[in-house]
Amino acid sequence: MVKKGLLERLNAGEVVIGDGGFVFELEKRGYVKAGPWTPEACVEFPEAVKGLHREFLRSGSDVMQTFTFYASDDKLNNRGNQAGVKFTCRQVNDAACRLAREVANEGDALVAGGISQTPTYLSGLGKQKTQAEFKRQVDVFVENKVDFLIAEYYEHIEEMEWAIESLIESGLPVCASMCIGPEGDLHGVSAGECAVRMARAGADVVGVNCHFDPFVSLDAMALMKKALDAAGIKVYLMVQPLGIWTPDAKKQGFIDLPEFPFGLEPRIMTRWDMHRYARQAYDMGIRYIGGCCKIQSYHIRAVAEELQKERGKMPASHDKHDMWGGGLMLHTKPWVRARANREYWENLNPSSGRPYSAALSKPDEWGVTQGHQDLRQHAESTTNDEIKSTTCKYKK
Amino acid sequence: MVKKGLLERLNAGEVVIGDGGFVFELEKRGYVKAGPWTPEACVEFPEAVKGLHREFLRSGSDVMQTFTFYASDDKLNNRGNQAGVKFTCRQVNDAACRLAREVANEGDALVAGGISQTPTYLSGLGKQKTQAEFKRQVDVFVENKVDFLIAEYYEHIEEMEWAIESLIESGLPVCASMCIGPEGDLHGVSAGECAVRMARAGADVVGVNCHFDPFVSLDAMALMKKALDAAGIKVYLMVQPLGIWTPDAKKQGFIDLPEFPFGLEPRIMTRWDMHRYARQAYDMGIRYIGGCCKIQSYHIRAVAEELQKERGKMPASHDKHDMWGGGLMLHTKPWVRARANREYWENLNPSSGRPYSAALSKPDEWGVTQGHQDLRQHAESTTNDEIKSTTCKYKK
Amino acid sequence: MVKKGLLERLNAGEVVIGDGGFVFELEKRGYVKAGPWTPEACVEFPEAVKGLHREFLRSGSDVMQTFTFYASDDKLNNRGNQAGVKFTCRQVNDAACRLAREVANEGDALVAGGISQTPTYLSGLGKQKTQAEFKRQVDVFVENKVDFLIAEYYEHIEEMEWAIESLIESGLPVCASMCIGPEGDLHGVSAGECAVRMARAGADVVGVNCHFDPFVSLDAMALMKKALDAAGIKVYLMVQPLGIWTPDAKKQGFIDLPEFPFGLEPRIMTRWDMHRYARQAYDMGIRYIGGCCKIQSYHIRAVAEELQKERGKMPASHDKHDMWGGGLMLHTKPWVRARANREYWENLNPSSGRPYSAALSKPDEWGVTQGHQDLRQHAESTTNDEIKSTTCKYKK
Amino acid sequence: MVKKGLLERLNAGEVVIGDGGFVFELEKRGYVKAGPWTPEACVEFPEAVKGLHREFLRSGSDVMQTFTFYASDDKLNNRGNQAGVKFTCRQVNDAACRLAREVANEGDALVAGGISQTPTYLSGLGKQKTQAEFKRQVDVFVENKVDFLIAEYYEHIEEMEWAIESLIESGLPVCASMCIGPEGDLHGVSAGECAVRMARAGADVVGVNCHFDPFVSLDAMALMKKALDAAGIKVYLMVQPLGIWTPDAKKQGFIDLPEFPFGLEPRIMTRWDMHRYARQAYDMGIRYIGGCCKIQSYHIRAVAEELQKERGKMPASHDKHDMWGGGLMLHTKPWVRARANREYWENLNPSSGRPYSAALSKPDEWGVTQGHQDLRQHAESTTNDEIKSTTCKYKK
Repeated sequence: MVKKGLLERLNAGEVVIGDGGFVFELEKRGYVKAGPWTPEACVEFPEAVKGLHREFLRSGSDVMQTFTFYASDDKLNNRGNQAGVKFTCRQVNDAACRLAREVANEGDALVAGGISQTPTYLSGLGKQKTQAEFKRQVDVFVENKVDFLIAEYYEHIEEMEWAIESLIESGLPVCASMCIGPEGDLHGVSAGECAVRMARAGADVVGVNCHFDPFVSLDAMALMKKALDAAGIKVYLMVQPLGIWTPDAKKQGFIDLPEFPFGLEPRIMTRWDMHRYARQAYDMGIRYIGGCCKIQSYHIRAVAEELQKERGKMPASHDKHDMWGGGLMLHTKPWVRARANREYWENLNPSSGRPYSAALSKPDEWGVTQGHQDLRQHAESTTNDEIKSTTCKYKK
Repeated sequence: MVKKGLLERLNAGEVVIGDGGFVFELEKRGYVKAGPWTPEACVEFPEAVKGLHREFLRSGSDVMQTFTFYASDDKLNNRGNQAGVKFTCRQVNDAACRLAREVANEGDALVAGGISQTPTYLSGLGKQKTQAEFKRQVDVFVENKVDFLIAEYYEHIEEMEWAIESLIESGLPVCASMCIGPEGDLHGVSAGECAVRMARAGADVVGVNCHFDPFVSLDAMALMKKALDAAGIKVYLMVQPLGIWTPDAKKQGFIDLPEFPFGLEPRIMTRWDMHRYARQAYDMGIRYIGGCCKIQSYHIRAVAEELQKERGKMPASHDKHDMWGGGLMLHTKPWVRARANREYWENLNPSSGRPYSAALSKPDEWGVTQGHQDLRQHAESTTNDEIKSTTCKYKK
Repeated sequence: MVKKGLLERLNAGEVVIGDGGFVFELEKRGYVKAGPWTPEACVEFPEAVKGLHREFLRSGSDVMQTFTFYASDDKLNNRGNQAGVKFTCRQVNDAACRLAREVANEGDALVAGGISQTPTYLSGLGKQKTQAEFKRQVDVFVENKVDFLIAEYYEHIEEMEWAIESLIESGLPVCASMCIGPEGDLHGVSAGECAVRMARAGADVVGVNCHFDPFVSLDAMALMKKALDAAGIKVYLMVQPLGIWTPDAKKQGFIDLPEFPFGLEPRIMTRWDMHRYARQAYDMGIRYIGGCCKIQSYHIRAVAEELQKERGKMPASHDKHDMWGGGLMLHTKPWVRARANREYWENLNPSSGRPYSAALSKPDEWGVTQGHQDLRQHAESTTNDEIKSTTCKYKK
Repeated sequence: MVKKGLLERLNAGEVVIGDGGFVFELEKRGYVKAGPWTPEACVEFPEAVKGLHREFLRSGSDVMQTFTFYASDDKLNNRGNQAGVKFTCRQVNDAACRLAREVANEGDALVAGGISQTPTYLSGLGKQKTQAEFKRQVDVFVENKVDFLIAEYYEHIEEMEWAIESLIESGLPVCASMCIGPEGDLHGVSAGECAVRMARAGADVVGVNCHFDPFVSLDAMALMKKALDAAGIKVYLMVQPLGIWTPDAKKQGFIDLPEFPFGLEPRIMTRWDMHRYARQAYDMGIRYIGGCCKIQSYHIRAVAEELQKERGKMPASHDKHDMWGGGLMLHTKPWVRARANREYWENLNPSSGRPYSAALSKPDEWGVTQGHQDLRQHAESTTNDEIKSTTCKYKK
């Protein structure tokens, strides 16, 4: 049986639920290294990658996104990362396509090839070299017959436009989402203008992913929607935010928070936060609703459960989860059974359990971006001296 | 090659690292239902269970504990739980043994059969019936040739003594750990006396697990150690705490906190918290150091990394994790690279990102325990009326 | 010796330091009633009022503002307030002038007559009736030869313009400050436009007071300054904010926070917060720098100490306060003596001591304003039924 | 008309309400210097001191305590304090008696002479020299015919016993309260034993004051009561705690918190906290209920209002304060009027308004006490070198 494609689904008014984050989750599980964050686990630990795909599939994800984040050649070899020495970009991307497809075939999900921003662009090496990086990945995706492409995690609209240009040559539907918030891209282009430019570059679906929490991301989406409406552009909207709270992140998002990446635990969203997110996203007219880093499968399940009526179905893993804490009716302790209701969980403001912690942090705000020498790709490792001299420059 | 047994390792002065929590983690992944928390996933989703075992193995766990929490017949059939209808206690326990053994064989880990407290005891049905529940599980463990047994998660020393009595009949080494904190068991027996009674009942290793955070648990361990010393008893010590902060939990532990079980996210420990825990536990003389609910494999990895020198080895998944954030040297952003050092992470007090939340919660403190009618096991579901009338009794 | 007038001082480039809040401080001391907040204490407890004036004088205040907040006839008789029954508007205002002058004469301070917004305006009774209320107060101020007038605490630019029109007829210098933040007045007029309209109406000094913390108030001042510059208007700037933190207050300010008025204690500013405030205000070019509700005399002293160099003098009460905690050198305990330095206090983020409290609150945001029937002045008391029916309308 | 004495009142079963704190309040008002905290303001600013006495009288205080904290000769001349150079101990104490008496005569209040711990004791100079310091103050109190004496703010039971011995020679009733919490005195004597020893030394009323919040202080009182009961001793109980929250203070109390003394604002209690305190203290059988540092007159008013029925009267300043926020019925804004009820204020957990602050702090815990060289009294100022070398010793 042939599956309906992405645009068929969206044209039919369906909600498409994306998946969640791979790098942070697989880092916790011991299969990805924090720092480079590259996805060679597709080759090294295929069962672990498939296991995570499967969790999302069972939780309601309609899209299996290839685990190809930062899988361009220039990133696999950046700053001492050995991934590119052991495996080629082609190998990693090829394996990722295969794993995503195998799990997608266990259900009704589509496979999307994902392409993210490049060190080449950040190093200021220009359009041609940047697009060459994209092309190597797109070629593998086309060979593997993915269902559509996603250009995601771009901090600069310029690089995003180059990416869209490269991706649409494949003839596949193209989604485009930037890792920006309401303050816009890192060159000062507003969120609204970014949306318009992504659409004009040819993307079928536009939006944001990563870097901000669901509600800050929806604030950015509101600006995008307004600008698209003002420009008279019809395009589908997508949003795939973080699974953590970032009310204090500024323009550069969560990587700028002092807790990134090893102290973010207190910020992790509850499933109830996700219900509110899904409802608000839907009410804004967004029809591609998913997650990015720190979004785990139970977060996606909450999205699917919230939108059950709109989608006309429950996710597979709902068998293991009654709505609004209903499973607690089976708990041994009577006071826990008393929590088996929606009102209880909707009104809970969970305590942090950390009386020596504050509520918010002040981001680093170094403010360096594309073209800055401190961002240049280089194959050899960063030295301690490099770090020391860089820090001094920005020490407040 | 024959593996060294538990007591051989402890006698040789080795540190034995336990594993982490299965029910909460597999709940998030969609394979376990919150409320009953029973482990029929061993039969339903064997690959998912094995996948989690493998994460712990790679992270340094020396023990693969069978996923048999609450796998007694009376619990599989409690309050509308359908697990016992679909699968027998024997089936579940048998599958759990097989999965644990398969993964243990991928490394140097031992298999431990775990037996937890029973609804039969809580319902006040007496020693004979309670021990009959234990026996059905022990039989399966013996048949499957597990390496040792753990009686864990007991709230009452009385039931624990009955359990130890049943377990030592197997001839296997027996560990015994109660889910209590410094305030002692739910019948008012002090933590110190519990330790003495567990040792006198014949346990080879005694301690606490679950219900409290690592540091509250170590407070309880200090009381146990003091009482054992005072009684002149030599016995090994074990601790397997929660992976969340519970400074505000009273006698009944985290199930008494209003956030249990669906709003505990802000309390999740960082890997740096685990370094401190491992060091303090080791310095107290505890040699079986592991985790329970909410302890994920990266938490166990942190324990293994902290105790590298003492153990003379690093865990397998250390390949994906440089010490003290060292992997950040490979990060794209210079200000994140500047965080690649121990001082930074040891001193971070992570913000909650939740300005509308408090630091601490007030537990429910209903205070009902063994023998109380609201705790009785019954096969049929709890009704809404039952919940309503129970709540009214305790409403403040 | 004749004192220099307000405009002489400002024209000479001097910084004029205002005073702090009377109603909240005298409420705590037992002389003012929270709710009506009317200043009949001028007649009832003159020594207490003088005592507070004197504290501000000694702390560096260059202005003794008559304690005539809400001292218009319509407010003294509003909603069951008995103040207007016992004392006339004239009596209260007259006493206030006398007390302010007596203390002003103990130093180099000026006397300013203060006139605030009226229930008459809020009730929608029109310009003529509103200005009649103003006139009765201005007449008393002119008779008492105050040095200048301040129209302060206005939520609507329209009423403020009517007030300025009434006040400039006196021939005295006129200051005008609205109780608004960066979101502008309650009819939706921007902060910038409010500033321009105050200046165009004839005010010599314009700015904001009350309703927001010092830093939110400075954000509003920045918008005012920008708009005035854009309009090419030269006018002096003033700011007299709250002495509490209000990062969470929305358009209606601190009265909208759930803690208003009896639970604001955790928000009270430290003296170190005031140092930062004074410095930032000065650097923005503001030359009339004072405080409003919750600003106590030690807060004003901190302003005067911070601006010592610019003003060429220290306040009298500096005799009892060494800079940056220096007095702690005389403390008995050595670890407290170790805190006698600027770095310590500048870097302190004081804990709340309240682990069951959150960091921020959600304002009520009922959003009713001028013209709404629930705001109408009436002499008789509010009934319980009125409150109940009003609450129902807005219950979320 | 002759007033009833302290013991007559207590014997008659009356509640005696103490006053609040003078040093912190007068420091804020510009009349006392933080660091030495000595009370020469009695001579320098008598009207300010009387004004504060009067606020407490009007708020329901039955006792005007002479403002003689730290008014012994050795303290007036300690570490560079100039108070003792300008004024003798006799002058200060004499003035304090006069001011207290003048205000006491405005109502039904008694005058209590207060004597606190001495640098002489801390310096280890022995019983004779320490009692000589006490005697000089007692003589002045006797000459001035105070109604009774209070030995308060003692960290060591030994010095307290010496004080009681000196005070009972006066023939006046003697109250004795130590500045300790549940952990006992600084030499490791338990709170319970301290109570027994104070009673055995001859005190008519015993308890605690200062250093801890009301609820921690009541915990200490519970230990004292239990020990007194166990010893079969009948004595009246008193409690005069801080007006700030100190859940995180350890043995040495609030001076050990990093916020002491210039960053304690977020910890200030609300009037509603005081209602709970008064009720709990009364229910424990305590009949002398007052306050110490940071307790302002509105806090004492709340105590008097809470105990209205038991006392059969309301305080004078109740005229300016309706119960449970009732005055808000007269507020202009309807949503504030809706807060005019007990349920609202009893359930409010006030937010801190400080998202960058934590809930709790870690005390310094240097742990030096009586006899340690760093605590020795000396007339000359502490030098910067002394501070630096001392700090190094304790730097963690």
